[in-house]
Amino acid sequence: MTLQKGLIETDAVIVGAGPVGLFQVFQLGLLEVKAHVIDALPYAGGQCAELYPDKPIYDIPAIAVCTGRELTDRLLQQIAPLGATFHYSQQVTAVQKKPDGRFAISTSQGTRFLTKTVFIAAGVGAFLPRTLNIDGLERFEGTQLNYRVTNAGDYADKNVIIVGGDDIALDWALQLCAAHQDGHPHKARSVTLLHRRDVLQATPSTVATLRALCQAHQLQFVVGQITGHEEDHGLLTGARVTGVDGVERVIPADALLVFLGLSPKLGALAHWGMDMERKQLPVDTETFSTSMPGIFAVGDINTYPGKKKLIVCGFHECVLAAYGSMPFIAPDKKVLLQYTTTSPRLHKVLGVASPVRA
Amino acid sequence: MTLQKGLIETDAVIVGAGPVGLFQVFQLGLLEVKAHVIDALPYAGGQCAELYPDKPIYDIPAIAVCTGRELTDRLLQQIAPLGATFHYSQQVTAVQKKPDGRFAISTSQGTRFLTKTVFIAAGVGAFLPRTLNIDGLERFEGTQLNYRVTNAGDYADKNVIIVGGDDIALDWALQLCAAHQDGHPHKARSVTLLHRRDVLQATPSTVATLRALCQAHQLQFVVGQITGHEEDHGLLTGARVTGVDGVERVIPADALLVFLGLSPKLGALAHWGMDMERKQLPVDTETFSTSMPGIFAVGDINTYPGKKKLIVCGFHECVLAAYGSMPFIAPDKKVLLQYTTTSPRLHKVLGVASPVRA
Repeated sequence: MTLQKGLIETDAVIVGAGPVGLFQVFQLGLLEVKAHVIDALPYAGGQCAELYPDKPIYDIPAIAVCTGRELTDRLLQQIAPLGATFHYSQQVTAVQKKPDGRFAISTSQGTRFLTKTVFIAAGVGAFLPRTLNIDGLERFEGTQLNYRVTNAGDYADKNVIIVGGDDIALDWALQLCAAHQDGHPHKARSVTLLHRRDVLQATPSTVATLRALCQAHQLQFVVGQITGHEEDHGLLTGARVTGVDGVERVIPADALLVFLGLSPKLGALAHWGMDMERKQLPVDTETFSTSMPGIFAVGDINTYPGKKKLIVCGFHECVLAAYGSMPFIAPDKKVLLQYTTTSPRLHKVLGVASPVRA
Repeated sequence: MTLQKGLIETDAVIVGAGPVGLFQVFQLGLLEVKAHVIDALPYAGGQCAELYPDKPIYDIPAIAVCTGRELTDRLLQQIAPLGATFHYSQQVTAVQKKPDGRFAISTSQGTRFLTKTVFIAAGVGAFLPRTLNIDGLERFEGTQLNYRVTNAGDYADKNVIIVGGDDIALDWALQLCAAHQDGHPHKARSVTLLHRRDVLQATPSTVATLRALCQAHQLQFVVGQITGHEEDHGLLTGARVTGVDGVERVIPADALLVFLGLSPKLGALAHWGMDMERKQLPVDTETFSTSMPGIFAVGDINTYPGKKKLIVCGFHECVLAAYGSMPFIAPDKKVLLQYTTTSPRLHKVLGVASPVRA
């Protein structure tokens, strides 16, 4: 229900679309509570999507092996009937408790919520790109300095410096370089890969391809760090790069693409007013409530005696948090545990047929 | 390590091979503890196998739908590398704490264990067949009175009374009757289905088939209850059956097959000396220890503030119980949480290859 443009009134806001946040959607859904989910990343999966999308996970119960991406896809499939709304590529910037007990939440994209409950499933924090901290360079962010490729065509005919030494950096270097070779319409004029050391933390075959292209002068690999920039009439024209020899050189650049990894940041969370212990939220193990009534914490962000930072534990926490939140969402409703195997109500919620018996 | 014939010395005994007991195997296995598992049923799965082997479950995280049997199979596959030993078709009959802190356990099959820790994953208790309580009839148990078909050939050329009104009872009635029709080598001479009322709680198509066969005089369906028996020279020859009209009649019977369902029984568990609350074991939520140090309780059998009897909660409890048990199993070992995605030690335990990076 939208009261005014941009203000979303809801029962539940979940902060974090990692596996635990997704399962929180499911558990609330079984109690017929529809949730809104906020995540800093442009897609679901959280750490699973960012840190190990293709690496096998072996300890999800009854799934002998799956990748982070598969786990995410499976959870998205499971929660599909439950009608959650996802708000990606934004993080919570402010939370304020209202006199009626609800929470006003705003995000970096200006989305605003008025919600009865909040579920923090933020893991180690919002995954935001590590930034280059060079005086004056921040003015070019979003134009000539980017931390993500939104459109490969933006680099057509440009002198591009790619900063970073991991698979993402190398893949983009090869892609823009390959475009260059093939006479692709998006071809960059030149591609320079810049990394602080000569060791590249990427797939061996990718590293080998890159080194071969360097030998063939198709791209340049420079070991060094950006220490300044050059500009002309408000346009970035080059990067000053200090090499391992301590000498600063200028590399022409119309575009800087920086891949220094994502860094989880708790951000505003640390200032919501809840008790914190070493960047974690203490919760009670009956309802997974934080010190602020109506705000629950599940998954890696919380702490309690015995806590283990495992996805399977987060799943359990979602169950108890969902039940724990019902007095805030529907104080007069009698909430009974029902089983998905036998409950016609849950079959309806999940959109599956109830079996008929004689 | 076997010290003497029949005595199994071990670190961990798990009571119950339902989904939670199986995941307890997994969590102990990741800590390099091999477990022995005891179950009253002749197979794994517990309630999942007994109560809903073919019914869909929708709330196992990241598994949108699976049957109880599939869930069991998936867990058995997942724990296969961890080398647990299963002791089926027996229940714990005695538990005694030894002066050295270990527990002596014996089962109804005479298996004996000496274990450092016990994990009770017994759900609602051991699933044992509900028995017919007719004076004198118990003497025929295992010969002419059975609660399970071990060999269909045992009923060849016999007058068989099948007691019960559910799918298992009807399926056996149809199967022995079909054998009769087809001149099958296992054919029974006659099949009588006996149920206390005219309502059969079975799949509609099965009920229809049965009623058609009754019309065709291929089998007999009698509404009534066994109230006595006939014997000759120590052999059962018939059942006295009291009908809804209150009249007692004798039905000739060489064999009684009784399917009154399984009834969970806590059995000896209630006398182990642990605190109980309404047939449940209170545990602390840090280690899932019962009131008796060294004995842990996971899954539906335990209780704590906020407890929900869901499989996903049992899975979490297994994790914390496994870690909670380590001071009893290896008091000097430093136990660190590792991740199956990244830990070479866990890859070795699970028998999977560790990835190699450049």
